[in-house]
Amino acid sequence: MSLERLKKEMVDMGEFGRDPQRRVKCHADLDPEKGVTRPCGTDANKKARDYVVARMEEAGLKVNVDKVGNIYGRLDGKKDKGVIWAGSHVDSVLNGGQFDGTLGVMTALEATRRLMEEGHENYRPIEVVVYTGEEGSAFPMALLGSSILIGKVTYEQALAAKNRNGETLEDVLDRMGYKGNFERKLDDVEYSLELHVEQGPVLDAEGIPVGIVENITGLAWILATIEGEENHAGTTPMKMRKDALLAASEIISIVNKNALDLLNKYGGSTVGTVGRFNAFPGAPNIVPGRVEVGIDVRDVVEKNLNFMIDEAKKALKNLEKKYGVSVSMEMPFGVHKAAPLSPEVVDTIEKSAQEIKVTAKRMNSGAGHDSQNIAEKIKTGMIFVPSAKGISHAPMEWTEWEDIEKGTKVLTQTLKNLSMKK
Amino acid sequence: MSLERLKKEMVDMGEFGRDPQRRVKCHADLDPEKGVTRPCGTDANKKARDYVVARMEEAGLKVNVDKVGNIYGRLDGKKDKGVIWAGSHVDSVLNGGQFDGTLGVMTALEATRRLMEEGHENYRPIEVVVYTGEEGSAFPMALLGSSILIGKVTYEQALAAKNRNGETLEDVLDRMGYKGNFERKLDDVEYSLELHVEQGPVLDAEGIPVGIVENITGLAWILATIEGEENHAGTTPMKMRKDALLAASEIISIVNKNALDLLNKYGGSTVGTVGRFNAFPGAPNIVPGRVEVGIDVRDVVEKNLNFMIDEAKKALKNLEKKYGVSVSMEMPFGVHKAAPLSPEVVDTIEKSAQEIKVTAKRMNSGAGHDSQNIAEKIKTGMIFVPSAKGISHAPMEWTEWEDIEKGTKVLTQTLKNLSMKK
Repeated sequence: MSLERLKKEMVDMGEFGRDPQRRVKCHADLDPEKGVTRPCGTDANKKARDYVVARMEEAGLKVNVDKVGNIYGRLDGKKDKGVIWAGSHVDSVLNGGQFDGTLGVMTALEATRRLMEEGHENYRPIEVVVYTGEEGSAFPMALLGSSILIGKVTYEQALAAKNRNGETLEDVLDRMGYKGNFERKLDDVEYSLELHVEQGPVLDAEGIPVGIVENITGLAWILATIEGEENHAGTTPMKMRKDALLAASEIISIVNKNALDLLNKYGGSTVGTVGRFNAFPGAPNIVPGRVEVGIDVRDVVEKNLNFMIDEAKKALKNLEKKYGVSVSMEMPFGVHKAAPLSPEVVDTIEKSAQEIKVTAKRMNSGAGHDSQNIAEKIKTGMIFVPSAKGISHAPMEWTEWEDIEKGTKVLTQTLKNLSMKK
Repeated sequence: MSLERLKKEMVDMGEFGRDPQRRVKCHADLDPEKGVTRPCGTDANKKARDYVVARMEEAGLKVNVDKVGNIYGRLDGKKDKGVIWAGSHVDSVLNGGQFDGTLGVMTALEATRRLMEEGHENYRPIEVVVYTGEEGSAFPMALLGSSILIGKVTYEQALAAKNRNGETLEDVLDRMGYKGNFERKLDDVEYSLELHVEQGPVLDAEGIPVGIVENITGLAWILATIEGEENHAGTTPMKMRKDALLAASEIISIVNKNALDLLNKYGGSTVGTVGRFNAFPGAPNIVPGRVEVGIDVRDVVEKNLNFMIDEAKKALKNLEKKYGVSVSMEMPFGVHKAAPLSPEVVDTIEKSAQEIKVTAKRMNSGAGHDSQNIAEKIKTGMIFVPSAKGISHAPMEWTEWEDIEKGTKVLTQTLKNLSMKK
């Protein structure tokens, strides 16, 4: 078992889609790493896929690609059914980091190789999985590959989806050579594992190398437009204004306060964020006539998530009466419900970590992952490793190699334990 | 005296630089007029200048153009000195209205013609003036022509100033045929008048056709950048954030509250506006790492203006301690002091309005005008006519023709009265 092999492969993978320069300001006390841009269908994405497939074949895995480009590198077991999946994705956001997704694929491959090298005789088949288009940075659906696998999106819908260049998913899969000819059914798959960087600061701040995910958070977006009257800032008396910005600004503190109130009441992992907030036309000397607002609320507890949504909508609506503005709002994808992961798999990961003496804590995931889809049909677990300073989707995304090694060991041990289940 | 002549000329002028379509949303209950785009140096600006010069010459005025393109159409008087100016500008903002500036030039010409047609024998010379580049929509200095006349900017600085295309003012004046060869001195000028649309809602709301400006407001901008930490909205716990937007949002209500407090305490015409307010990177699911803020504060009372500036700066600074963000700020042009207009001219305008039985009220100007410069050296007065719904710098800028006629009559009567002063 050698970290060096995994490290080399991660460094190699990080060169596919490496950006020429930094574009995002991050923490000043980390080195200014360059980002990785590798959306689904790009040349960089093809190179990353080719690299993974070559490593799978070197290791002796049988590689299959389904109709939407999901890749499966299979190690047969003594029996055919009860397959265990382990994997993640190799696409990235624009100017993102080198660990998000990729680490889950490469550690799954490494764990499988280690079991093979140990001479471990797996009772169940193991498949290292690469999901297509997790990030939604090319096609307007995130978690694309896993959404198709669970039937949330049809193959026809997915293959016809267009990226920003107007190309369909079918076009780009064809071009990359990753349009397979079968539809992967889930009947024979029993367990699924995904190792991923936390993308938050908790493990890093607490100095804990491994997180065991119990729930993936529920999520909703509320996009609102507040319209008042655009006016000359010098000549329009204060009392004759309908200032869209003055009205809209209320929502910022309300969303934050509601999240804090829930945290103080229940503990938990509620978050509420106003991430988009722009006043138009945007000149200092014009009273803003319009503000565009984007609110993101998340909770693993459905009741709390609904509270955050309802209160934000109510507060937005109240602006109309209070300020004489008009407010329109939409929830572009409705509500993504929280996904509880499999207690059996969570317990197995915890036991596996204890067996090899790696400290681990149970936690929730605030970010979305293919595992939240897969968990609807298959017993699923996730293993988190720390993100330095909580940074992700940014060039300075970083995880210490020793933490990666600990996470890989926990993944290997879990895979071993699951693979022996009769 | 015929409104029809002035009306035709205003409609003609409104066609120079007419935009092909609306770009700015304004009041829905006004007709969607197309805007006018006529920055200094454009073809449209040349056409408007040519049109004005042709009408001046038709009327028998002697036309002179100075080194920075200011135009003077002169009607000699019995004496040489003690010249009276009346005029405004014919350049516009991008997608602006057809009255701002142009109305002041065309009514000055109309008033002068009416006096000539009446057989009025003016003791003092009258000059209809067109100032170059009032709006700052082409060159990065507003009130350009008047700033040069009072020596605030040198001829060299002005002629070397570059527009967005990298052309100097000298280049564009040459191209338009409006680079004269003399520097206009102010020694022989005693009075200056400017009729202008109010650009605010007060006269329109109160149903008063004419405003007499006593002061042009003082003005300052504070541009600030608030920097926190850009983070993942799902994975970054509420208590581990440095949300630049949550911090910056405080300033919006503070600026508004301070203006309202001064209004409630002193009456007056204090305004405070946050007109620019943008969160970056601007995705709903990213905790904003940076917010750009542009604050505009105005008052005719210096003490109140300073209070607004100081309180805004203090409130911005306080965000650092309260939210752990960093704040930088600048005041791009310092403080434009309020300009009191000439009490003698204000009285003359008021008396003139009474003589011809036009209702008029004294007021302040919340917008900047060339008259604020000219007032530093010459006894200056301004006449406002109503802006429907207070709209200006927008396609739907509108003033009723009957109000224009009343304003023109007051201007004519004032010019008559001043022109007879020994």
